Amino acid sequence: MTAPLKDFSKLSIHTITTKPWALEEAVRNYSAAGVKGITVWRQALEGRDVKASGQMIRDHGLTITALCRGGFFPSTTPEGRALAIDENRRCIAEAAALGAPMVVLVCGAIPGLSLFESRKQITDGLAVLAPHAAAAGVKLAIEPLHPMYADDRSAVNTIGQARAICNELKSPAVGIAVDVYHVWWDDRLEQEIAACGREKTLFGFHICDWRTPTTDLLNDRGLMGEGCIPIRQIRGWVEQAGFTGFNEVEIFSHRHWAGDQHEFLQSIQHAYLDRS
Amino acid sequence: MTAPLKDFSKLSIHTITTKPWALEEAVRNYSAAGVKGITVWRQALEGRDVKASGQMIRDHGLTITALCRGGFFPSTTPEGRALAIDENRRCIAEAAALGAPMVVLVCGAIPGLSLFESRKQITDGLAVLAPHAAAAGVKLAIEPLHPMYADDRSAVNTIGQARAICNELKSPAVGIAVDVYHVWWDDRLEQEIAACGREKTLFGFHICDWRTPTTDLLNDRGLMGEGCIPIRQIRGWVEQAGFTGFNEVEIFSHRHWAGDQHEFLQSIQHAYLDRS
Repeated sequence: MTAPLKDFSKLSIHTITTKPWALEEAVRNYSAAGVKGITVWRQALEGRDVKASGQMIRDHGLTITALCRGGFFPSTTPEGRALAIDENRRCIAEAAALGAPMVVLVCGAIPGLSLFESRKQITDGLAVLAPHAAAAGVKLAIEPLHPMYADDRSAVNTIGQARAICNELKSPAVGIAVDVYHVWWDDRLEQEIAACGREKTLFGFHICDWRTPTTDLLNDRGLMGEGCIPIRQIRGWVEQAGFTGFNEVEIFSHRHWAGDQHEFLQSIQHAYLDRS
Repeated sequence: MTAPLKDFSKLSIHTITTKPWALEEAVRNYSAAGVKGITVWRQALEGRDVKASGQMIRDHGLTITALCRGGFFPSTTPEGRALAIDENRRCIAEAAALGAPMVVLVCGAIPGLSLFESRKQITDGLAVLAPHAAAAGVKLAIEPLHPMYADDRSAVNTIGQARAICNELKSPAVGIAVDVYHVWWDDRLEQEIAACGREKTLFGFHICDWRTPTTDLLNDRGLMGEGCIPIRQIRGWVEQAGFTGFNEVEIFSHRHWAGDQHEFLQSIQHAYLDRS
């Protein structure tokens, strides 16, 4: 059995988790609570100087774990694909300016476009971007998304598929972010995580929980312990695979966003120690 | 490219698709519209003589394709597992009385019980039931359910997992029902369907569509053509695998249930020829 986490030295929180807080509030409150990491969503940077925001975050003693999110490569037109590449270049530049070591990618899908074609376009897009990211000192983390998002969010729905892309590109800048919400059901999960470890592509690890019943496909994620995902067991597999990075709490939840965010932050920290 | 369907000789409709209709109405209306098959949900039989219902269906020129549904094997207690077996025995007896050649199984899952343990309990349950089903002349069709139902509906979420169970049991009474809604995202779908063909386990084929956005995890399925599933392509794979059974239309939809069911039936028939 994997031992419980003993402190918050590896706890990172995605800004979207406490969406009602502006970036400055989130940074101040995470820092005051002893949280050590933050993953910044691009919308949290809107209207702000990105470089100064990065400095402000570091001044509060927080490590920036990632910038969320790039991706959305597939398009039915060449123009659309070119626009997506441009947008991802901007995202990489933003990560570099912020001081984020990686960009998390929701790779995209288009309803009606075959998933095979979408994955080809995703691979092609990453092939163009990988050298650009490497030059900027930024990694690109493919996040396999739950199959319920295969229609319009991502054609990459398993770690196996993400690994296939990584193995095709063979770029040290391209790896995988494993989110328990998306992959917990996969009967090959333990082996796939181990393979990511061997292949040096395990870039990120996201936690939250799957509620029963889940009432919204997007924004009804649970706090760790509110659902059925064996989070601690999966964390054990991730650590056995050699991962030493942060455990990133990424929760989209109308329910939690509607509540007091200070209390929610306390609950996150409690659940982190108790149920992760 | 797979050719369009030319007539309704292989069209079967699940009674739940037109849920507002009582069994007798559904049978009368399907028959009058030239539909040739029906899959009966157990709740449609409530308060009725099962054998007489089967005769009534056949008297209307309809072939009974299946009885829906058995399964729900996992439990955290031995008593719960024994009760599930008993319930499935009743379901098999009901199918035999109705004259249905198979029972479709939603295999079950318990939040917090590991998916591996649930699949073991499912396999154990089927091992007990298979000879019983064979003696009754009824087949058992494992329906792999979409991974978004892995929490409390089924621990069998891919055709690959269902095949593993079939290969372990090696009973001609146990096979698989492939529903495009649950498996369309699987990058191994074509090969898995072909393998079912070789292994003689392709017992049923269900169609509907995946809408974007999907607003309800259970009851927002689309009519064929309303979503992104390459239904005709998948039907081609199923036919190439040697399947000659009915194409069963199974749509759970608050939206469609709220409308006029005669119009909905017309839409189903149109979509069946045009988009399946």
